[in-house]
Amino acid sequence: MAQRRERVVIVGAGFAGLFAARTLKNAPIDLTIVDRSNHHLFQPLLYQVASAALNPSDIATPIRRILRRQKNATVLLGEVREVDVRNREVLTDDGPIPYDHLIVACGATHSYFGNDGWAEHAPGLKSLDDATQIRSRILYAFEAAERTEDAQARTAALTFVVIGGGPTGVELAGALAEIAFRAVVHDFRRIDSRAARVFLLEGGERILPAYSPESSASAQRQLESLGVVVLTKAMVSQIDASGVQFGDRRIEASTVLWAAGVQASPLAASLGETDRAGRVKVEPDLSLPGVPDVFVIGDMCHFEQDGAPIPGVAPAAMQAGRHAASNVLRRIGNQPTLPFRYVDKGSLATIGRAAAVAEVAGTRLSGLIAWLAWLVIHVFFLIGFRNRLLVLFEWAWAYVTHQRGARLITGDVAARVRRESGEQ
Amino acid sequence: MAQRRERVVIVGAGFAGLFAARTLKNAPIDLTIVDRSNHHLFQPLLYQVASAALNPSDIATPIRRILRRQKNATVLLGEVREVDVRNREVLTDDGPIPYDHLIVACGATHSYFGNDGWAEHAPGLKSLDDATQIRSRILYAFEAAERTEDAQARTAALTFVVIGGGPTGVELAGALAEIAFRAVVHDFRRIDSRAARVFLLEGGERILPAYSPESSASAQRQLESLGVVVLTKAMVSQIDASGVQFGDRRIEASTVLWAAGVQASPLAASLGETDRAGRVKVEPDLSLPGVPDVFVIGDMCHFEQDGAPIPGVAPAAMQAGRHAASNVLRRIGNQPTLPFRYVDKGSLATIGRAAAVAEVAGTRLSGLIAWLAWLVIHVFFLIGFRNRLLVLFEWAWAYVTHQRGARLITGDVAARVRRESGEQ
Repeated sequence: MAQRRERVVIVGAGFAGLFAARTLKNAPIDLTIVDRSNHHLFQPLLYQVASAALNPSDIATPIRRILRRQKNATVLLGEVREVDVRNREVLTDDGPIPYDHLIVACGATHSYFGNDGWAEHAPGLKSLDDATQIRSRILYAFEAAERTEDAQARTAALTFVVIGGGPTGVELAGALAEIAFRAVVHDFRRIDSRAARVFLLEGGERILPAYSPESSASAQRQLESLGVVVLTKAMVSQIDASGVQFGDRRIEASTVLWAAGVQASPLAASLGETDRAGRVKVEPDLSLPGVPDVFVIGDMCHFEQDGAPIPGVAPAAMQAGRHAASNVLRRIGNQPTLPFRYVDKGSLATIGRAAAVAEVAGTRLSGLIAWLAWLVIHVFFLIGFRNRLLVLFEWAWAYVTHQRGARLITGDVAARVRRESGEQ
Repeated sequence: MAQRRERVVIVGAGFAGLFAARTLKNAPIDLTIVDRSNHHLFQPLLYQVASAALNPSDIATPIRRILRRQKNATVLLGEVREVDVRNREVLTDDGPIPYDHLIVACGATHSYFGNDGWAEHAPGLKSLDDATQIRSRILYAFEAAERTEDAQARTAALTFVVIGGGPTGVELAGALAEIAFRAVVHDFRRIDSRAARVFLLEGGERILPAYSPESSASAQRQLESLGVVVLTKAMVSQIDASGVQFGDRRIEASTVLWAAGVQASPLAASLGETDRAGRVKVEPDLSLPGVPDVFVIGDMCHFEQDGAPIPGVAPAAMQAGRHAASNVLRRIGNQPTLPFRYVDKGSLATIGRAAAVAEVAGTRLSGLIAWLAWLVIHVFFLIGFRNRLLVLFEWAWAYVTHQRGARLITGDVAARVRRESGEQ
């Protein structure tokens, strides 16, 4: 009698989950990948959708399209509510999915540090819907400025505040400056879009705190030369419909974007002990303490290495995905699992056209060279050949013409903005 | 003392409004274009967004980008509520806009013939948001089929009904067949997407009633060879969350799309006498009866020619836009206005890959030749060089690979579908 195939379930098809799935490609198992959206999202480029440079489909590919040739893999669209580790079942809205080995990789979402009321006024950037909503808000602000006759309202409409000086905040602020000071300059008649102000607020001592002080300083200089006002030690105490309060200062702004904090997926808390960022603490082999058949990887997991948790970046997620999958295979083959070790290949943050910082193997790069490195790496890693070509085309076009190709206001942004700002 | 420039206002930046604006390019006037969205939409290709072949930004360009070099033109984002013809003001949510000459071109929206409750279950296709919502629904249906264990639910999920056998209905049905029977065939494990059923319901005797009976028959044959079930004389009497009733027959279907009726923008009724489709009757020079400084054009207007109203197609809107604008210039120059005459250059409807029908100057074309004619004309007319290149690339790619590049489920479709179909 044929032995039953081992059932491996992966929850989440971000970088971690997808690299785990691909590692299991030729294994004689039944593999199920569950995700609540139908697409894998190339999150490092999400800010480019938010800033109207790329299209949603340039950075997102259907998960089942990526895995169409992997015959052992079934892809299901579904929201996982809980993991029943005792009965070895993943509980979804559409019923339980039984497993023999489980890899959980649900990632993280933005966190407002307990001020959930801020979410309405300062959207964060994690999904395609977030990105198109932010895009609509940014573009709508210029429209509102062109339309109003009120000088104060016009100033507020042309004021953009990005909260959080990590890579996402730096990228968003740089992109906003390029939109206001370059892309839309000739499109308006009543306003000069160059009168816009773009603020980047960072609560700590310097932006890009995970980089060296030299790279932080370089990034700040590059941002400032783009026209961004960088304010450090600016702890935000209030965000409302009309602006942002920090310390004893207030900025009136129609558009406030949140890039300040992330929190692991809520599923993490149901799995085990979590750290301050809501991440589950895992064993050296990436398994859940006391539950050797469940692995937790990616932005959801707290993995200690050299005295600190490894960072929530794509390369770490990919490496952990591969490692967790190979540990599943070792378990199936009755071999002991192996400990994981993250290999840091360097960090890259982009700021704008021909502007970036990079730190690779002790070497610091900045400006055009760092930006080209960033471009090559990101296009190379984009999932799917078609996307790579299209994205290169979009970028080349945008670079030459200073234009942004996806300047669409969709959804009912106008009504929402009007409602929020207390107009009738 | 310099004479005040004449103020010309255009409401709506579809084909009619945009061609009017461009005709006024070098006139010494103050031109204001008001539209409730920030983009001109290339509506003939909207069904390609709904069917995941093209991206929203491939068929939409910011209005102010199109008119950026037209120095006499100011573009405003705003919703027009009413026209005060006595005081010569257009009333918007953000206050009145005064005019000396007005061109109204607000287009049409879908009509459910008084059954507005059907809108929820059978979305129509007029805006980008409609298109991305329909795209999400179609893709979600396959996901639901893959996930469910219930045979009846699976059959309903794999049943697609398009209501209305005009060009939009024909295009949507053809695209659905290509998705189910080609594009996603290898992507699922539990279902065979080729088991899907695609119905096109037409209340009249034949599909494409505006074409010759021979073209209608050819279109029906081409649809059937793609796998679409075409049902004529099928008058729909009920649409609910689980399906469609027509005559004494019922089809259980998760996805029902509405392409059966259009109705002129509600603004039309406030302007003057309307026909059954809500269109304003206009004078031979396209002006409003008794109000010579207001012109109404495009899908909003009822213009009689040779005993019948001219059709609501893009070429008619473009021609009327040019004509209304030149009549405005004649009025400014104190010359009498000229009557409009629509020149019908032929009709084209596409069905699928290498499938279409065309009628040009008494000649009927079908199949590959008609499709190539359609392709060239549509790419040629796409506003903006960048879009043309990208769309050609997308099409070439889709043609060669049978793939669809924009298969993204966005928005909260899952929750809505679940709610509608009575799941918890």
